[in-house]
Amino acid sequence: MSQYQKTAGEILGRIRRARPVVHSITNYVVMNSTANVLLAMGASPIMAHAQEEIEEIVTIASSVVINIGTLSQPWIQSMKAAAQTAKKAGKPFLLDPVGAGATKLRTRTALDIIDAAVPTVVRGNASEILSLSSQGGTTRGVDSIHTPEEALDPAREIALSMETVIAVTGQRDIVTDGRRSLVVSGGDALMSYVTGTGCAASVIIGAFLAEEMDPLVATACALAFFGVAGEKAASEAPVPGSFWVKVLDALYTITPEQLGAAARISRI
Amino acid sequence: MSQYQKTAGEILGRIRRARPVVHSITNYVVMNSTANVLLAMGASPIMAHAQEEIEEIVTIASSVVINIGTLSQPWIQSMKAAAQTAKKAGKPFLLDPVGAGATKLRTRTALDIIDAAVPTVVRGNASEILSLSSQGGTTRGVDSIHTPEEALDPAREIALSMETVIAVTGQRDIVTDGRRSLVVSGGDALMSYVTGTGCAASVIIGAFLAEEMDPLVATACALAFFGVAGEKAASEAPVPGSFWVKVLDALYTITPEQLGAAARISRI
Amino acid sequence: MSQYQKTAGEILGRIRRARPVVHSITNYVVMNSTANVLLAMGASPIMAHAQEEIEEIVTIASSVVINIGTLSQPWIQSMKAAAQTAKKAGKPFLLDPVGAGATKLRTRTALDIIDAAVPTVVRGNASEILSLSSQGGTTRGVDSIHTPEEALDPAREIALSMETVIAVTGQRDIVTDGRRSLVVSGGDALMSYVTGTGCAASVIIGAFLAEEMDPLVATACALAFFGVAGEKAASEAPVPGSFWVKVLDALYTITPEQLGAAARISRI
Repeated sequence: MSQYQKTAGEILGRIRRARPVVHSITNYVVMNSTANVLLAMGASPIMAHAQEEIEEIVTIASSVVINIGTLSQPWIQSMKAAAQTAKKAGKPFLLDPVGAGATKLRTRTALDIIDAAVPTVVRGNASEILSLSSQGGTTRGVDSIHTPEEALDPAREIALSMETVIAVTGQRDIVTDGRRSLVVSGGDALMSYVTGTGCAASVIIGAFLAEEMDPLVATACALAFFGVAGEKAASEAPVPGSFWVKVLDALYTITPEQLGAAARISRI
Repeated sequence: MSQYQKTAGEILGRIRRARPVVHSITNYVVMNSTANVLLAMGASPIMAHAQEEIEEIVTIASSVVINIGTLSQPWIQSMKAAAQTAKKAGKPFLLDPVGAGATKLRTRTALDIIDAAVPTVVRGNASEILSLSSQGGTTRGVDSIHTPEEALDPAREIALSMETVIAVTGQRDIVTDGRRSLVVSGGDALMSYVTGTGCAASVIIGAFLAEEMDPLVATACALAFFGVAGEKAASEAPVPGSFWVKVLDALYTITPEQLGAAARISRI
Repeated sequence: MSQYQKTAGEILGRIRRARPVVHSITNYVVMNSTANVLLAMGASPIMAHAQEEIEEIVTIASSVVINIGTLSQPWIQSMKAAAQTAKKAGKPFLLDPVGAGATKLRTRTALDIIDAAVPTVVRGNASEILSLSSQGGTTRGVDSIHTPEEALDPAREIALSMETVIAVTGQRDIVTDGRRSLVVSGGDALMSYVTGTGCAASVIIGAFLAEEMDPLVATACALAFFGVAGEKAASEAPVPGSFWVKVLDALYTITPEQLGAAARISRI
């Protein structure tokens, strides 16, 4: 058992006890499903995007998740304000640059948010992450055309230059702060037949960030938890509608001990 | 069997026959789930927030539900317009002040809507309801930090001063018009592991208001119905993803007779 | 076996291989459920409404679906822009005029979009479709008060005058380009107890349009596929919450061969 497996279980235990409030400014498509993910695993979601209340909401929250999946100008302003407020308040925050690389608006918005305040973690698929680097990348819609492994070197570079943690998720997940790099296994191919699984990964990381100081460890442990839940769900229901219901069930039923035994995290 | 049990079944029977149109202006997180709640129980949801069509929509509808869970200025204007239009047209309307007390924007918006037109019913958790009273309250995100019982006296006062029905929901629910007070039992702890269960309670009340003139009775019967559905679902699937699916199933399958036998409403 | 049955299976096979990107500008209520419908059946949804990115998104997409279920001015502008961009790029696009006839805003918006660019297909219930004809119609909320059969003649006229394909869905579905008319059987009464089933039909048509040049055939085959999935789901779970989960499962599990054998499409 690696040190990280045990840590994954311990963080989950802390989440279950503390029920941390995770503030999300996210896209319309996944608001319901990611709120349910957070509740099922034992955290407390709060969704709010009005600029007038950003500061109060960030103050209540233990962590912040910003997801650019559906954009318009007022939301972009609120995302930047939330990033800056979280940074100022010392709250961890995650950026999910959905579709970055697919359109100029999304790439620019992701970079603008990073410019406003460097996220604690950036999680995306390989295309999205590559689009944030100077060498760029291409995206086929919101689906990745790169493997996580292909993104390891640029992810390291981005992590070093931005001083953040980069998580590249796909069939296997890579997490790096530029110096330390981890690979997380788990999940199931069915995840690509359900909307918002990447967004779900992001809010789970948000909850783990609330209860673990080391963002590299928090991110890898969160992804391992989601992976274990996905595997459990797929073994029970190998079809997408039932699978997602079982993912929510698994996020609720998996104990810290079970996660400690099943998480698959290793160094690269 | 109390008089209210029988009444609960009778109102449900009327809803199933009439399929009343319930107009909701609600938050992005629960639009899908509350529409499904209304359809499953036999009512007809209509979701519309554009100011240009508020008057026509309210005319079509039998009742209106306003939920402030995600706010921005255009939506706030539409909520006020819907409240005033419903009042003018003599249609019952419910206010769900999600997160009132948590941020100034939410507290002020709830009070502004009440100021624009006094709702037929206001339903919230104890923190939200207390924030509407002169003595105020505090909210931990959108989760309540008070028990319904703690809120009985202030709820009575608010009901009397506003001339409305106040419903404070939690482990047990309290419904009062200031003179008469009822307590409703039912539901399951799993409800706090699924998003939008409070919002679901609100739209169910909206449907009951469409088919029952006495808003105190309509509200208590609606909450009893949701409670019975929650208990049935939890007995069949004690895990959150499956539980919610079973709640929708139960809202559809519970007959008026079964509700008449199982509803738990008593006077305080 | 009619020629269309076999064709339905063939188109589904092409979708599973190509995973076409379907761009949706749709209402808040069904964004999650229609994204899941597209993913389950093997297509790739992309939801985006910001005007700044419409052109790039339409370029990525194989087809476009515009659904007016929840409206506000910026969204209306984006819908018109998407219609024009799709037309210009030669991409098939579908209009779902949700609630047309119920409010002036919705009727006018549907007609304005048609005016901006004639859709490849317009799909609605009978009331919605009738509201687009010169003789008008009436809508009870978003629920139809007409049968598809009543709408056949006006649908033919609209199809001819607009030079488009009109699909009128209900207990049975009618698809016409004014010259050729088809009727599709299938589905289950439970579909009216779940939100967004009409919207789901629209995005399935969107996916079929991406892989079949003849929009009349694509539309009828798509509706037949949804009908077969609905029947399969209802036979497995005759209650609305579980039913919808099973619909998603069925969209994933039904093979092209099974669809070819079960699709029910005939000429009128």
